[in-house]
Amino acid sequence: MIKVGIVGGTGYTGVELLRLLAQHPDVQLVAITSRTEDGLPVATLFPSLRGRVDLAFSDPSKAPLRECDVVFFATPHGVAMAQARELLAAGVKVIDLAADFRLKDPAVFQKWYGMPHGALDLLEEAVYGLPEVNRKALARARVVGMPGCYPTSIQLGLAPLLAAGRPLVDEEHLIADCKSGVSGAGRKAEIANLLTEASDNFKAYGVKGHRHLPEAVQGLEAIARRPIGLTFVPHLVPMIRGIHSTLYARIHPQAAGLDFQELYEQHYAKEPFVDVMPPGSHPETRSVRASNTLRIALHRPGQGDTLVVLVVEDNLVKGASGQAVQAMNIMFGLAEDTGLRQIAVSP
Amino acid sequence: MIKVGIVGGTGYTGVELLRLLAQHPDVQLVAITSRTEDGLPVATLFPSLRGRVDLAFSDPSKAPLRECDVVFFATPHGVAMAQARELLAAGVKVIDLAADFRLKDPAVFQKWYGMPHGALDLLEEAVYGLPEVNRKALARARVVGMPGCYPTSIQLGLAPLLAAGRPLVDEEHLIADCKSGVSGAGRKAEIANLLTEASDNFKAYGVKGHRHLPEAVQGLEAIARRPIGLTFVPHLVPMIRGIHSTLYARIHPQAAGLDFQELYEQHYAKEPFVDVMPPGSHPETRSVRASNTLRIALHRPGQGDTLVVLVVEDNLVKGASGQAVQAMNIMFGLAEDTGLRQIAVSP
Amino acid sequence: MIKVGIVGGTGYTGVELLRLLAQHPDVQLVAITSRTEDGLPVATLFPSLRGRVDLAFSDPSKAPLRECDVVFFATPHGVAMAQARELLAAGVKVIDLAADFRLKDPAVFQKWYGMPHGALDLLEEAVYGLPEVNRKALARARVVGMPGCYPTSIQLGLAPLLAAGRPLVDEEHLIADCKSGVSGAGRKAEIANLLTEASDNFKAYGVKGHRHLPEAVQGLEAIARRPIGLTFVPHLVPMIRGIHSTLYARIHPQAAGLDFQELYEQHYAKEPFVDVMPPGSHPETRSVRASNTLRIALHRPGQGDTLVVLVVEDNLVKGASGQAVQAMNIMFGLAEDTGLRQIAVSP
Amino acid sequence: MIKVGIVGGTGYTGVELLRLLAQHPDVQLVAITSRTEDGLPVATLFPSLRGRVDLAFSDPSKAPLRECDVVFFATPHGVAMAQARELLAAGVKVIDLAADFRLKDPAVFQKWYGMPHGALDLLEEAVYGLPEVNRKALARARVVGMPGCYPTSIQLGLAPLLAAGRPLVDEEHLIADCKSGVSGAGRKAEIANLLTEASDNFKAYGVKGHRHLPEAVQGLEAIARRPIGLTFVPHLVPMIRGIHSTLYARIHPQAAGLDFQELYEQHYAKEPFVDVMPPGSHPETRSVRASNTLRIALHRPGQGDTLVVLVVEDNLVKGASGQAVQAMNIMFGLAEDTGLRQIAVSP
Repeated sequence: MIKVGIVGGTGYTGVELLRLLAQHPDVQLVAITSRTEDGLPVATLFPSLRGRVDLAFSDPSKAPLRECDVVFFATPHGVAMAQARELLAAGVKVIDLAADFRLKDPAVFQKWYGMPHGALDLLEEAVYGLPEVNRKALARARVVGMPGCYPTSIQLGLAPLLAAGRPLVDEEHLIADCKSGVSGAGRKAEIANLLTEASDNFKAYGVKGHRHLPEAVQGLEAIARRPIGLTFVPHLVPMIRGIHSTLYARIHPQAAGLDFQELYEQHYAKEPFVDVMPPGSHPETRSVRASNTLRIALHRPGQGDTLVVLVVEDNLVKGASGQAVQAMNIMFGLAEDTGLRQIAVSP
Repeated sequence: MIKVGIVGGTGYTGVELLRLLAQHPDVQLVAITSRTEDGLPVATLFPSLRGRVDLAFSDPSKAPLRECDVVFFATPHGVAMAQARELLAAGVKVIDLAADFRLKDPAVFQKWYGMPHGALDLLEEAVYGLPEVNRKALARARVVGMPGCYPTSIQLGLAPLLAAGRPLVDEEHLIADCKSGVSGAGRKAEIANLLTEASDNFKAYGVKGHRHLPEAVQGLEAIARRPIGLTFVPHLVPMIRGIHSTLYARIHPQAAGLDFQELYEQHYAKEPFVDVMPPGSHPETRSVRASNTLRIALHRPGQGDTLVVLVVEDNLVKGASGQAVQAMNIMFGLAEDTGLRQIAVSP
Repeated sequence: MIKVGIVGGTGYTGVELLRLLAQHPDVQLVAITSRTEDGLPVATLFPSLRGRVDLAFSDPSKAPLRECDVVFFATPHGVAMAQARELLAAGVKVIDLAADFRLKDPAVFQKWYGMPHGALDLLEEAVYGLPEVNRKALARARVVGMPGCYPTSIQLGLAPLLAAGRPLVDEEHLIADCKSGVSGAGRKAEIANLLTEASDNFKAYGVKGHRHLPEAVQGLEAIARRPIGLTFVPHLVPMIRGIHSTLYARIHPQAAGLDFQELYEQHYAKEPFVDVMPPGSHPETRSVRASNTLRIALHRPGQGDTLVVLVVEDNLVKGASGQAVQAMNIMFGLAEDTGLRQIAVSP
Repeated sequence: MIKVGIVGGTGYTGVELLRLLAQHPDVQLVAITSRTEDGLPVATLFPSLRGRVDLAFSDPSKAPLRECDVVFFATPHGVAMAQARELLAAGVKVIDLAADFRLKDPAVFQKWYGMPHGALDLLEEAVYGLPEVNRKALARARVVGMPGCYPTSIQLGLAPLLAAGRPLVDEEHLIADCKSGVSGAGRKAEIANLLTEASDNFKAYGVKGHRHLPEAVQGLEAIARRPIGLTFVPHLVPMIRGIHSTLYARIHPQAAGLDFQELYEQHYAKEPFVDVMPPGSHPETRSVRASNTLRIALHRPGQGDTLVVLVVEDNLVKGASGQAVQAMNIMFGLAEDTGLRQIAVSP
């Protein structure tokens, strides 16, 4: 059994980790920390876990994190970078669901997150936890920075286009029009995310600049091995879970005859959690609700030179906690889908 | 492996059966029928099942139902009673999720469902599939009528009060003010259940008379072994899944000193799927979303003579398909929670 | 033109007052105060008012409230009682949408609101602003305490039963099972009311005791001129606006033959904002969305001795700001429906 | 008073017309037809209209449509073209909310709507009812084809860019990523639009081709007086009303220095129903809920060469019935905002 600790378990990625790990056959939950809820049974805060998770939150100072095999950080940005070194020294692997180990350039990190990076050596060592791209590196990783929810969908949605040796589309003018459920904003008391404000409503936000933009660009450039340009517009959907990314790419004239459907199907043929749907499909976010699957469909309206890629994922599962468990499975040599075979809940 | 067939798999109880049975370790899905969708892969109609259920719908005339160990009917009322005899003769057990085997009095059935009952002997043989009440009979049953969604919550919410030897409350004036998500209405094209009509809205319906009233009364009387009186008012909640029943009972003066919390906790102490919450709790439907658990909390406002019982369940799981799998487990001698340990999806 | 000021305009009752008053033909908006938003144009906080309300919030110390004819308090409890005296002395009428002038007994106020009442003489003078009950007193009132949202629906739903000279129902065991949209909780940053927590969910709350209970009891007793007993269970509905109250009363044997439909229709025959629907109706909250109408329907299931009264209102209009404007119209001798003829928005 | 008739009043554009026209000071509702609901009071089908609209539906054969000054068609495609001639001959003006008079090329109409056009002369005479573009022609029009909901937002969102004498953006590669509430699908019993299917969900649809594409292209080309190219991807949002269009245009190098905010503000300076918001704004659909206003905000992420235009409207008001009333006001010489001054309902 893998001994698992969770730092910061009172948010949505925390409770989702608990849901997944409590059903994982090879995991023993050892500790979950919360500075504010020390002593409170987890199931009191999250009654959905009553009878299934017996742990109580414990103060980080008391929690036996060093006895774990792996610790997940489901904390605000900045926490993991401060605590990872000590855990790694004790032989504990670290998986961060925040942004501390996502951006390779510390200047970019500081610009977008408003704090200097406090562990540059770990940042350099850290593996970006996108299994479909970094599987081999993950198998050897000690410290992993999990991708953001939007960047997961954007990178997996565009990877087959960019991974080809030659440019297939206008890589300088990619567009990601993304729509997310409100859980992406976290379990924070903010007026803008009240049901009264966010339901029966639709809006864009962060068009001027969103922290997931540099991450997505970094990831796409790593795949393409060339500079890329991305316009990223996130929107808020009145639903709890789910991301739908609508990606636009202009096809290069010399690639006009390519079978993009075939390209995608081959690229993802062996992936357990990426589903390339038949041509003409319209994936729905509910088709992946509470599951670790990401679905993609391709369109080429009017057979023109604009490729439209539709991508759906559950932002809390494939976009966060499920993907983190997937990374853990790889890091510990388990079958990649262990504990992640839940079928989407629909309707 | 238990060979399982499903008749009528295009509705919500059908797809929910598929979700649960595809993850059940002791079940082999053999056939799923649909008169209208013959040949269509199940996963085309329900993309949430892509990669997990490979069956196609087949016409009832072609489906190898007689080779199954058990067949679930997720059909409109009237179908199971017409087909059960032939299956039983072939040694196949029958679990009906519709109303064909719920009401013991055929006259009552005819009054509320507008058709004569076509299999009186089977009706007499049939066991009412509420495990917490009929566990022993279920273990020997060949044909089972699964309870309706509302009656499940009403019966389990009131059972401890009625099962005592002496009357504890005014049993002639019980009130069940019930609220259901829209999936209770089924996967039918009806204007009243469009998102545009049912969302951002709340209403009662069927106050004059609802088919679940005679069923709930029959069940309560079977538990009490006395006549009872029930006012039942169902309401439609703008959500997909979930039932919240608010039950009112006036406490008899001679029972005024009783510890009702203790009564409930003892009554359900050994039940795997009934959770009596601490006093003063307010169970939320999302705490049981996509799980087979039913939660109960007791209140006695102002320490007066009115007992308020709050009950939540997922109408598609404990209120339908999950409870049917629970019944199947009992009928086949499996641990009752086999394949039903999913943790509720929250948020 | 009636010069109107609003104290505390950043909440939902505030913005709803603005929506209604900006369209009121006899009103001139003079000032709207906010301690935190001094100088901010109202339409910046509430873009729905862009181009229609040019006011900016002003600090209470600067706002020309004494030049108004009437000031509405859309503030937390305790503010109006502290500021009303000075305004009244300047000849300004006061309409409080909070609870300061609702409860006639200061001990009851203190018990439920946790603060002593600071203006006992004004409390005694204050009129409870339920027009259908207190129309005459309102016409002469200087200071008015507007009813809570739930109590409005409960009182108007039960008034015809209680206003008869003789008891028609068991007045000691009335039940109000009430369901409210989330806007009833106000525009406050609270985790429980996030879309992620409150949508696709249903729960009761405050069953142990809710501040609207003593208010409803006081109002019902004022109508009945007898003591009454009420069990009040509020629930949270995943919608923005609307209250649906399901009221249960046991009919006295001597009233068993009464035509309750006729009783209600006569009682409300002349009311501009109370609509008694045909027998057997199921009023929907959306049928009153954004309008000042309250609709009632009566049911007597199985022709038994339980009367079921269904009541719907928009909690922000008839349950708060619209009713406050209605009261203002009466206080200033205008036609009662002036500025309140908006048709409900449906769908 | 303008005598108004409505043909086909049982859908959402019909009931919305009723809501607006019943509050219009210069309109007398004379007749509303429905083949299926002959004799049924309108307020029975739409209780939101109880006490405000006394008309009953009447069979088209009996309705006194020829006595009207104007008749609105809120019917399926094909009805208006069949009945308009007779009404025009009787001196009645015709405003069609369906597609019969939108597409100027009958071959295009036939391709997308699957029926030949039956009134080519009227099609030629018809004015496309977008007031901000065709105000002068509308003032003289006898027969008007109202724009679709999506095309309204796309055309008004791009018009300032295209109306300039010289190309400012790459007009051959415009992108309209549009999101609509479910009411855009009409009041039709379809499984895909049930609350259970469409809520807590997000999806694209019609990516292969949507009827509003040729209409939007025609409108944009009429504004630009040049060919344009448009990729149009509609999505379904789990909300009742509202459209949010996110429009992408690549700025021509020679226009890189242009002040687009200034361009838009000047273009719409005198428009009563188009609100250009301050730079950096994120318009929300609820800010126009139930109002005739359309709001626009401009963004240029990273000061790059991609212009992002955000547009919101209420699809049933500015996108349908409100715009039709606006057109009527122009046709009859009324102030353009007569009866259309409702403030958006928020929250």
